[in-house]
Amino acid sequence: MKVISILGSTGSIGCNTLKVVEHLQDVCVVALGAGKNIEKLAQQIAQFNPEFVSCEDEICAENLLEELHKLRVKTPKIELGEKGLIEVATHEQAQTVVSATVGAIGFVPTLRALEAGKRVALANKETLVMAGELMTKAARENKAEILPVDSEHNALHQCLRGESKREVKRLILTASGGPFRNKSKQEIENATREEALNHPTWNMGDKITIDCATLMNKGLEVIEARWLFDFAADAISVVVHPQSVVHSLVEMVDGSIIAQLGVTDMKHAIQYALTYPTRKPNCLPPLDFAKLAQLTFEEPNLDKFPCLTLAYKALKTGGTMPATLNAANEIAVQAFLDDKIRLSDVPKIIESVMNEHESRTISSLEIILETDAQARKQAIMKLESLEKTASANLR
Amino acid sequence: MKVISILGSTGSIGCNTLKVVEHLQDVCVVALGAGKNIEKLAQQIAQFNPEFVSCEDEICAENLLEELHKLRVKTPKIELGEKGLIEVATHEQAQTVVSATVGAIGFVPTLRALEAGKRVALANKETLVMAGELMTKAARENKAEILPVDSEHNALHQCLRGESKREVKRLILTASGGPFRNKSKQEIENATREEALNHPTWNMGDKITIDCATLMNKGLEVIEARWLFDFAADAISVVVHPQSVVHSLVEMVDGSIIAQLGVTDMKHAIQYALTYPTRKPNCLPPLDFAKLAQLTFEEPNLDKFPCLTLAYKALKTGGTMPATLNAANEIAVQAFLDDKIRLSDVPKIIESVMNEHESRTISSLEIILETDAQARKQAIMKLESLEKTASANLR
Repeated sequence: MKVISILGSTGSIGCNTLKVVEHLQDVCVVALGAGKNIEKLAQQIAQFNPEFVSCEDEICAENLLEELHKLRVKTPKIELGEKGLIEVATHEQAQTVVSATVGAIGFVPTLRALEAGKRVALANKETLVMAGELMTKAARENKAEILPVDSEHNALHQCLRGESKREVKRLILTASGGPFRNKSKQEIENATREEALNHPTWNMGDKITIDCATLMNKGLEVIEARWLFDFAADAISVVVHPQSVVHSLVEMVDGSIIAQLGVTDMKHAIQYALTYPTRKPNCLPPLDFAKLAQLTFEEPNLDKFPCLTLAYKALKTGGTMPATLNAANEIAVQAFLDDKIRLSDVPKIIESVMNEHESRTISSLEIILETDAQARKQAIMKLESLEKTASANLR
Repeated sequence: MKVISILGSTGSIGCNTLKVVEHLQDVCVVALGAGKNIEKLAQQIAQFNPEFVSCEDEICAENLLEELHKLRVKTPKIELGEKGLIEVATHEQAQTVVSATVGAIGFVPTLRALEAGKRVALANKETLVMAGELMTKAARENKAEILPVDSEHNALHQCLRGESKREVKRLILTASGGPFRNKSKQEIENATREEALNHPTWNMGDKITIDCATLMNKGLEVIEARWLFDFAADAISVVVHPQSVVHSLVEMVDGSIIAQLGVTDMKHAIQYALTYPTRKPNCLPPLDFAKLAQLTFEEPNLDKFPCLTLAYKALKTGGTMPATLNAANEIAVQAFLDDKIRLSDVPKIIESVMNEHESRTISSLEIILETDAQARKQAIMKLESLEKTASANLR
């Protein structure tokens, strides 16, 4: 029996992880970390019977007790906020921790899981973007393994099985190109929230879906790949592949390219990370070759999607710059989701926060947290000045 | 310094092997086995200075001496025919033997190389088709390794690196579909020699190019894959992929598909087989993703290409049936190349020879050789009766 805990159990990856657990049968869930979605958390407790859960705050905890009472379910130990998430991440019995919170909230708990020597199935890419150096150092020093759940990195992990790192020429991440691949710069500028949330091939959470629309998601993935696989920025490329069938590719020094193909369902990568190095039959339909018909590839348009360029720039600058990019992006995306700014304002805000940031070496956790807080503050200031300009323009 | 010998040095694979040797620089050639192409053999001797060579017969040997004299090149030891090829295959100093003769002639020498414990870089697929059981047994018993040079099997070998055999669901061989993929059954029936030799993506020898036009090549490859990787016929599929960019794929039990992509140049697979498990930079241009544009996949049309069905049938029957298929195919293809029969007669001749053959267990080399001789005789008889019918129809 494998024992796992989940950070972000009520999100898209969290729910899919529990479906995989249901299918695998030899995996049990000892701890669940959630935020505010108490109804779903209560259902998960009823079905998976964890010893320990975490939710956002006191009010959530009270609601949870009430829900569990209604469902006549035994109450697990409950803890709150980041402290609770850290307990989920370091639960003594958990061998694998699925890190699936969205954004920076998963950062410290994931670091603690690695320090505790857990295998981390990592879906929270912001963690590596913010502090890849700290995370990979913690993993190395504590013999903890990071298994990527992001479909692209999971694909790279599969392509690299049996290959020697020094015989790899470059990693090639595929990007669907998002909903605006064939739109003009102006159409992207005026895109609505609904248009941006309409991803052509993947069904995911809101924040990541907007990141796909701006190609920032691919930028974050480039940074993630740098840390997961230890390659320089120049050895990581992006190719647009709208069908999302080829999940990523690796080019070897002899020109050979190894690719991983599959259905667009996160359950595949989740199961791979839970069962690695073993592969087990899963509950997904096989990829239908007759239906593949055609796969296309094209270069990403950096003019239409400046976020990708910003991410490469942050990676090349190094230090705290990627954490700055990530924080500014989170604020800007949330503002777009709240209908406060236009989609084209997202890269503008990020770029201006990055321009004012002087990158520092990451020597401790505190530096990251400071950088993160500072960049958020800066981004909010940029937002406010944008709003002022907008309302001045309206008058 | 790696030491190799080459069976079939003046053919397409042989010449490409020597180009790879030229590029690698840490490989030397100790023995070359050729047939009648004496001029080319002489040039190869002048450039690579082997200790030992083999050519078809006395006349060839005399011509070779003359050529070498003209080129003022030191004469290596010369031997003739199959005896000579066996000496090439078992040369004491050779660690790797490239088996690249076309058709059944390479059969015994390749078996001897395996018995001598050599690594065999195998391009001669007929060898495994005729006697996969004997070959793989000899490899096992003598700790000899078979590295496939056929691009599809080489791709499968690459896809299977780091994977466990029992986690593989099926092997998927890609087929370009040949020059007649979009032609009607009647157009195929009336195809000329020139049309059949006009392969859309690969530049190869005549016999294999005709096998591509009938899809028999893919059928032989299915049988070859069965022996190289030890999978049942039902776990080996064929998908038509006209661009020949994806060289083959492996579907895992978890639905993941691992694919190998590359340029359509045999030098890639040859170098892989010579340097395995190491990968080294090669002399080929990289695959240009921007130029890939689109990759398509479709099911093979078994009605238009009955040879593929015949090959599966031979594999499922087992014993000496694949050797019968192979021998009848060689005779029929040569007859087509000699303008004696139509392309659509090729599967007819093979099927009728197979129908009259009672499959036997392969307990010895002699049984294979007998089967081969018998099937050729039968095929020639079928040819003659076809010719009689044709000339009767003309009267």
